[in-house]
Amino acid sequence: MEKEEYPYLSKVSSPADVKAMDADQLSGLVADIRKALLLKLSRHGGHVGPNLGMVEATIALHRVFNSPADKLVWDVSHQSYTHKMLTGRALAFMSPEHYDDVTGYTCPWENEHDLFEIGHTSTSVALATGLAKARDLAGGHNNVIAIIGDGSLSGGEAYEGLNMAAELGTNIIIVVNDNEMSIAENHGGYINNLNLLRATQGKAECNMFKAMGFDYLYVEQGNDIAALTAAFQQVKDTPKPTVVHIHTLKGKGYEPAEQRKEEFHWHMPWNLATGRSDDDGDSENYSDITASFLLGAMKRDPKLVAISAAVPTMMGFTPERRAEAGKQYVDVGIAEAEAVAMSSGLAKAGAHPVFCTASSFFQRTYDQLSQDVCINRSPATFIVAAGTVLGMNDVTHLGFFDIPLISNIPNMVYLAPTTVEEYLAMLQWSINQNKDPVAIKLPGGPVRHSQGKVQTDYSRLNQYEATRRGSRVALLGLGTFHHLATEVADALKQQLGVEATVVNPRYITGLDTAMLDSLKAGHQVVVTIEDGQLDGGFGEKIARYYGPTAVRVLNYGLKKEFVDRYDYAAMLSDSRLTAPQITADVVSLLNE
Amino acid sequence: MEKEEYPYLSKVSSPADVKAMDADQLSGLVADIRKALLLKLSRHGGHVGPNLGMVEATIALHRVFNSPADKLVWDVSHQSYTHKMLTGRALAFMSPEHYDDVTGYTCPWENEHDLFEIGHTSTSVALATGLAKARDLAGGHNNVIAIIGDGSLSGGEAYEGLNMAAELGTNIIIVVNDNEMSIAENHGGYINNLNLLRATQGKAECNMFKAMGFDYLYVEQGNDIAALTAAFQQVKDTPKPTVVHIHTLKGKGYEPAEQRKEEFHWHMPWNLATGRSDDDGDSENYSDITASFLLGAMKRDPKLVAISAAVPTMMGFTPERRAEAGKQYVDVGIAEAEAVAMSSGLAKAGAHPVFCTASSFFQRTYDQLSQDVCINRSPATFIVAAGTVLGMNDVTHLGFFDIPLISNIPNMVYLAPTTVEEYLAMLQWSINQNKDPVAIKLPGGPVRHSQGKVQTDYSRLNQYEATRRGSRVALLGLGTFHHLATEVADALKQQLGVEATVVNPRYITGLDTAMLDSLKAGHQVVVTIEDGQLDGGFGEKIARYYGPTAVRVLNYGLKKEFVDRYDYAAMLSDSRLTAPQITADVVSLLNE
Repeated sequence: MEKEEYPYLSKVSSPADVKAMDADQLSGLVADIRKALLLKLSRHGGHVGPNLGMVEATIALHRVFNSPADKLVWDVSHQSYTHKMLTGRALAFMSPEHYDDVTGYTCPWENEHDLFEIGHTSTSVALATGLAKARDLAGGHNNVIAIIGDGSLSGGEAYEGLNMAAELGTNIIIVVNDNEMSIAENHGGYINNLNLLRATQGKAECNMFKAMGFDYLYVEQGNDIAALTAAFQQVKDTPKPTVVHIHTLKGKGYEPAEQRKEEFHWHMPWNLATGRSDDDGDSENYSDITASFLLGAMKRDPKLVAISAAVPTMMGFTPERRAEAGKQYVDVGIAEAEAVAMSSGLAKAGAHPVFCTASSFFQRTYDQLSQDVCINRSPATFIVAAGTVLGMNDVTHLGFFDIPLISNIPNMVYLAPTTVEEYLAMLQWSINQNKDPVAIKLPGGPVRHSQGKVQTDYSRLNQYEATRRGSRVALLGLGTFHHLATEVADALKQQLGVEATVVNPRYITGLDTAMLDSLKAGHQVVVTIEDGQLDGGFGEKIARYYGPTAVRVLNYGLKKEFVDRYDYAAMLSDSRLTAPQITADVVSLLNE
Repeated sequence: MEKEEYPYLSKVSSPADVKAMDADQLSGLVADIRKALLLKLSRHGGHVGPNLGMVEATIALHRVFNSPADKLVWDVSHQSYTHKMLTGRALAFMSPEHYDDVTGYTCPWENEHDLFEIGHTSTSVALATGLAKARDLAGGHNNVIAIIGDGSLSGGEAYEGLNMAAELGTNIIIVVNDNEMSIAENHGGYINNLNLLRATQGKAECNMFKAMGFDYLYVEQGNDIAALTAAFQQVKDTPKPTVVHIHTLKGKGYEPAEQRKEEFHWHMPWNLATGRSDDDGDSENYSDITASFLLGAMKRDPKLVAISAAVPTMMGFTPERRAEAGKQYVDVGIAEAEAVAMSSGLAKAGAHPVFCTASSFFQRTYDQLSQDVCINRSPATFIVAAGTVLGMNDVTHLGFFDIPLISNIPNMVYLAPTTVEEYLAMLQWSINQNKDPVAIKLPGGPVRHSQGKVQTDYSRLNQYEATRRGSRVALLGLGTFHHLATEVADALKQQLGVEATVVNPRYITGLDTAMLDSLKAGHQVVVTIEDGQLDGGFGEKIARYYGPTAVRVLNYGLKKEFVDRYDYAAMLSDSRLTAPQITADVVSLLNE
């Protein structure tokens, strides 16, 4: 790649440098930033639209406020790249060899201007209320500013945060970055009010923010540094909770991103000139498989409803497929708690809801899964996507925790398919049954296929499947890692001549005590392998069951720790999640 | 007790009977219901104010709508007793020997007019969106009605539900029962709008419900059957999402409850004539101990902030103590997510937040504990109250799940004190340190005291304390049940002459591998005893650790199941959580 020139951005090493620029220099800076964003993101992948839309507002914030004395909290922080550039990290955007010097989110370990590691939406105002209260207790006078998008306002935590911010009654400035989009289109009644406020240039009497007690200011030109600077100057040091509602353009400055906002919210590397991916992306994946299956099933079952919480493509629901599903598709906005509770209501009333989101976002629904669904035994279906060490590797999006989170809730049936055929059979069974809440954990890694026929009826709960019957060693390979169990069995056969038993447990939430008891005869070692954290996981249940017996148990899975941007191969090897390592451990234990 | 007469209520066996009554009969019915409520509640305990305030509205709802064809969803359902009386369950309120025929919450296993088991707030609208969507898919025409209190509107799930209800665009009626109170006083910016709407008889242009797209109707006389009936008639069969905002009087009809609304939100049995408890209630308890300690500590530490989420007395913060704490006390409303995220912000800014709520309500904060607090290593303190089998025994308020929920989050330090002295030492240490997020699980049962000095520094994580050193058997008694470990050790000594090792693990979140390794020498059996569910709990981690070794492990705790209104002794015995049962198991294993 040829070396790019960034005459203005290269001179910025701190917000002070931005404050010193005149209008012409600022125009140059804006151009440099957009160029750096587009080059890095098109080569590297990342959040495109949110960052392009917030270039001017970020510059204006850093011209008016004095970070880090004034506290900026970036909601979900996928719009924080300009902030990173202006706070000493421009090189990580200008120079390809430094691209990975920074994370894709704000990161306090990286820079003093980043206050929190943030990757889930709707948290900024709540976090900011703590900063404001701490300031007030200490008698400080800094500004506290939370920047939150219109899409993120749909989350309950945002609303709870706004309520407290209003009640605190002191300086807290909420910048509502309204680009008329969530990840996909917006959903939720509050959007009516944002539409009204934009249409009236902020003058409508009916104003959700004023209703809560906020002072309110509207900025139509949300991509104009002068207009933004004037507004921020006006509210700086205000003694009152204040909302500055700015109207920005998502994807600003890059035609394909302005036109195709959903596609360019986040993008894998693409061809900057054509605005298209060179990779045609038609390799087999669980998102497309899920959507195709559900669309087919919907035609046969008018009570089937697919539910998304603002990440429709997680379940393969492209705009075309959403249109095809019609009223059998619901997007609740970024509101996972609503999605789960609504699923309970649908199931109770005889409909067949299927809610799919990422493992990491199911973390927002524990109480709804427990109280709204499982206590009520509502037969809803939940598809847990990206719940795998082979998935997202940002610390805020890890897929290691869904087994401890979901499988320990009474009444839940949590299933771990090993192949696409098994997955679809489980999904079809779950939709058809009306007895149990069911969650299904999508396998990670390449899509695998069953060789023979798969079972269609999963109503006899907790019945594991022995895929090979042997002796001395039993290998329970759950979901993603069933193939590892088979590979270890092959290696044991080769190395020791031991014919190991291999089991597909299928049910994460319960023990097949008949099978576990039968294994006591003739098996000295039972091995569990799971795609998730060991603590609170599946393997520990097996270890507890065999605790009072002579059977030795080895559990494989992930350590309890937050890791960021890990290397996949290194992570598997550090966790001893490879066939040679497991085989070696088993051999060593057999030789004891 | 003499037999009471209920001339009107005794004639009601279904809503049809209520529909058939004339105005005079309805007056008689209202009087009967209030009498029955007061007699039962004063003898039995329960939710007083919420039920007294909703007598007329419930009658009006059942006169206008046709339950169960029309669907009534009662938020948190602690106002549902009149509904129970009108739907065939009056005897459970009129006749003392039948008091326990019904639960304290709506219960679908009890009656077809109850759609969900509900005990956590802010869920009704979200559940109702599912009922409405299912109706629309099936082409039905019934009304869907969610009844929600002003206090419950502070919860994020309520807001998310309202957003979807507004977007669905079809019949859904939200009855906002505004009694100007949460459990204690209300908190949150939205209260400004409810105040404005009441002050203007619903006429203010700035209206949070209209902002979301709801039709809106205000009823000032929320305890007048005629006014309520007219309003409900007006909205019945509406094709649009509609809010009916009714102004009711919490505690209506019983002077002490009208005057002392917080005290009479929920009440233990009391003397109806005096309005006071005969029991002076000054036995030692962790709520008072916590409040006294924190108030003392606040005087020395101006950065200390006690945070409640609408249950201040859970941490002993009576109105007097709240006044004493002044700005060092914050109530966020029923908004646990905000409480946890705010704690993270406070801790990051150098303050010392302490948030206390019930184990069951921490279930609403998993994502905030994980993302806002633990990924960010914010040194906030969380006190987990009622996290014990010896606490609340309603299915919606069980305290069995906090160990699986909280202890499996990386970076969290979850402590289990065994005595009040140990608890206060841990609390003081946590407040003073600035390194780790800390949660403390309050012990259940009678308050116990340490004999000797307790450790003051807990910064060396995961260091267990051996309280007796012996051999053959090691008993790890966590928190509440440390005394059981000691009792088992005594019994083993007596029965077998075995001097067992007894350990106070103190740290739920990590293993003292040095101690666990040392126990391998000379110990054949390791026993864990914990006050929580076995699945995902502490004992399973010990079982996993010893899995590959010859050490036998026995785990004691609670089964993974939802149980309702259990008998404490039977529950302990069914779980083998008694010293004789554990001793017998150990003896049997030693004799194998």
